Amino acid sequence: MDCWVDGQPADALSLKDRGLAYGDGLFETIAVRGGQPLLLERHLARLAEGCARLAINADQALIRNELLTYAGAMNEGAGVLKLILTRGDGLRGYAPDPSAQARRILQGNPPATYPAVHAEQGVRLFPCTTRLSQQPLLAGLKHLNRLEQVIARAEWQDAEHAEGLMLDQAGRVIEGVFSNLFLVRDGVLVTADLKRCGVAGVMRAELLFQAESLAIPTQITDISLDQLQWADEVFVCNSVYGVWPVRAYAALSWPVGPLTRKLQTIARALLDV
Amino acid sequence: MDCWVDGQPADALSLKDRGLAYGDGLFETIAVRGGQPLLLERHLARLAEGCARLAINADQALIRNELLTYAGAMNEGAGVLKLILTRGDGLRGYAPDPSAQARRILQGNPPATYPAVHAEQGVRLFPCTTRLSQQPLLAGLKHLNRLEQVIARAEWQDAEHAEGLMLDQAGRVIEGVFSNLFLVRDGVLVTADLKRCGVAGVMRAELLFQAESLAIPTQITDISLDQLQWADEVFVCNSVYGVWPVRAYAALSWPVGPLTRKLQTIARALLDV
Repeated sequence: MDCWVDGQPADALSLKDRGLAYGDGLFETIAVRGGQPLLLERHLARLAEGCARLAINADQALIRNELLTYAGAMNEGAGVLKLILTRGDGLRGYAPDPSAQARRILQGNPPATYPAVHAEQGVRLFPCTTRLSQQPLLAGLKHLNRLEQVIARAEWQDAEHAEGLMLDQAGRVIEGVFSNLFLVRDGVLVTADLKRCGVAGVMRAELLFQAESLAIPTQITDISLDQLQWADEVFVCNSVYGVWPVRAYAALSWPVGPLTRKLQTIARALLDV
Repeated sequence: MDCWVDGQPADALSLKDRGLAYGDGLFETIAVRGGQPLLLERHLARLAEGCARLAINADQALIRNELLTYAGAMNEGAGVLKLILTRGDGLRGYAPDPSAQARRILQGNPPATYPAVHAEQGVRLFPCTTRLSQQPLLAGLKHLNRLEQVIARAEWQDAEHAEGLMLDQAGRVIEGVFSNLFLVRDGVLVTADLKRCGVAGVMRAELLFQAESLAIPTQITDISLDQLQWADEVFVCNSVYGVWPVRAYAALSWPVGPLTRKLQTIARALLDV
């Protein structure tokens, strides 16, 4: 399916776009099934927060309508819809124009094809040496400055590792390269506090919400490698593949546990409409 | 003048470019006079280092030739030439294709028009509250992940501040938003160590080289706000405007000193061919 730029089919972008010049923008990667963008409200909420924090002017209602229309027109109503929202064209220099309107770019891709074994038997995480830098002003946002993820993902090429684990500069356990991480300890569902770095994933938010609905205790906190080692269960998640149990990381290993399976079932129901 | 993409006139970019998707690339902003790109070897050296560190495949000889040809064709042979080098098109996902060839984007702009008073009488630096994050893997490079500069530059709109000063997360004095910073103390020319963050500017490198040629002692080190306060002279520099004396920052102030003027004269000679 053609890409859209500001609601019109397009295959190219202005060379003056600030998304290109500075990574000055945000993105969302949205699973589509049955012609519907899944977890849409959560994607839109994160996008709106990003716009507010970066002072990017965007018409959220228009974005919602475009995502719905585009998803409905995707081949067989299924795939992965990527929205890139940039601050639009710029002149030379970093200063943003306070009156600039965001540019909306929609790209449709076929459904993601990960080996079923990742979800069924769990994955091994590559120990990335690339550490996440700490920047509270950008932490949590899915912005376009993603060089850390690019260099982390380039650390391994083998198929043995489905994901990589990233620590921050202080050695805290933060997230996967393209996933969030949870651990379970004594029945409590734990995920990293993302106030310094990391991307606050839509599936992470949804699973925290679902867990609370099921009266499963949750904790958002700093996680050390020691705490990871002593976890009863570990899993990663995102809004495209759902939940993958984590079987191993470096010399550590874990069984696939019952809470992981329960949340995986919930994620699967959300993503397989 | 038209932009060029991979050596051809163009006004648009592929929507799959990884420069847009992830800020996966580098840039150089080069002053042009008399049809010549100035400080070209230093720009090319920094670009080549960036390519090596990010594992971006680029034909450096081709880039040199294109910069020379493009600069020679600019209106009146003068202006600012911006080169953006991206990792080219990508599929979905962060993993870079190790065989991908870089995409070259050249953009010509008219000469920069800063008030002459900045260079003549010196500038006041805005005290940016945006702190630079520490990422040794990217430190020094002029890469496309520049959201920190965007949000720092958005902190002030008044014309009273020509530049802003950025500290790192630990409170060290690093650089301006679009400049490097030097101070002079007891005859020693001091600039920040950029091993954790910051952009290793081409004019910074050139002034360090020129100072050494003149037997002026230089020091690259961590700089505290205390050290800044007790400086005899302070100035900022880049490869477009040269050298601006710094007269004030928050409650601090400095006279315009003799070493600043000497290096400013050298920078002016380099930029006004």
